Amino acid sequence: MASKGLLLVLSGPSGVGKGTVKSAIVETKAFPFEYSVSMTTRKPRPGEVDGKDYYFVSVDRFKEAINQGELIEYNQYVGNYYGTPLAPVKKMLSEGKDVLLEIDVNGAQKVRQQMPDGVFIFLTPPDLHELKHRLVHRGTDSETVIQNRMKQARNEIMMMSDYDYAVVNDTVANAVSHIKAIVEAEHVSVKRVIDSYRKMVEED
Amino acid sequence: MASKGLLLVLSGPSGVGKGTVKSAIVETKAFPFEYSVSMTTRKPRPGEVDGKDYYFVSVDRFKEAINQGELIEYNQYVGNYYGTPLAPVKKMLSEGKDVLLEIDVNGAQKVRQQMPDGVFIFLTPPDLHELKHRLVHRGTDSETVIQNRMKQARNEIMMMSDYDYAVVNDTVANAVSHIKAIVEAEHVSVKRVIDSYRKMVEED
Repeated sequence: MASKGLLLVLSGPSGVGKGTVKSAIVETKAFPFEYSVSMTTRKPRPGEVDGKDYYFVSVDRFKEAINQGELIEYNQYVGNYYGTPLAPVKKMLSEGKDVLLEIDVNGAQKVRQQMPDGVFIFLTPPDLHELKHRLVHRGTDSETVIQNRMKQARNEIMMMSDYDYAVVNDTVANAVSHIKAIVEAEHVSVKRVIDSYRKMVEED
Repeated sequence: MASKGLLLVLSGPSGVGKGTVKSAIVETKAFPFEYSVSMTTRKPRPGEVDGKDYYFVSVDRFKEAINQGELIEYNQYVGNYYGTPLAPVKKMLSEGKDVLLEIDVNGAQKVRQQMPDGVFIFLTPPDLHELKHRLVHRGTDSETVIQNRMKQARNEIMMMSDYDYAVVNDTVANAVSHIKAIVEAEHVSVKRVIDSYRKMVEED
């Protein structure tokens, strides 16, 4: 059944290992997907190809892209702009290709607002998952460490609530396996396939 | 993260192969689940064990069970009543066990009304999936055959709209693989896990 591709948004708190999990998906060929090429005002490094590694643009061009609504999300990092162009993502999705965005939580929130049909996956730190155990077996951590972790945990859980799936990054292999299952399941979700079935019988 | 088990409801049009797919899940040990034991007024056959194969009860007891709301759904077949008792299903789910119900579409509809948190999987006949192709390449089927299949297809798509997932039963192995992925994905869906995370930080 031909249908639109999935926009897969992989996010989570900083340091949770988003990049490592994405690399493992690529290396193990867990499932096929297309890359979204980012736009940046950073200068190309030796060997980087415009349109492949990044769309390299001037600050003026980047600001124009922002103003014209050409970017799903953007941010500034070490003096340079980075953003995700909307048009190529929409094109790949309409061709039935899945697109994977690995992105920070602020970026994911902006993507959610514009593309609510995306599949939003929150990578969860394993120590959040194990927090209960750690709290029960106090003594290994100081009270200050525990209180700080609790505060952070409440923050992480609040972030998680905006996502569709919470995948614990206990091992990269487990995380990849869950993400693979999510992709397979979403591809057979009724909300994603029923329109193409309906179209099929209406066209007669 | 301990959480409630999943109620998996496997249904679909008659003849689609629900029983075969369920047997394949059992035989390949695709994922662990508990059986729901049905209640029936049918007489036990040699070797059948009360409480294991069925709960064998009198017609009066069955009618009492209906009136007391003890059954999630029930129907009559060749003069006997068959029904799904609610209490054991609820108990298994609260113990974190997944429960699989293989059930006809009318039964599934009743389960949906009472247990909307269930995972409702619609097995789709492969010829529905291939209908478009068949319509394009008319000539192999008569116009009457095509019109009947179209009418049936519209009915099947209408049924499908009440479900969470539509799994094409093209091969039993493919169907089982998709159902396995659905189970894995649902177990990490935020709506199912976030309460236990929240409870964890609130309890401190």
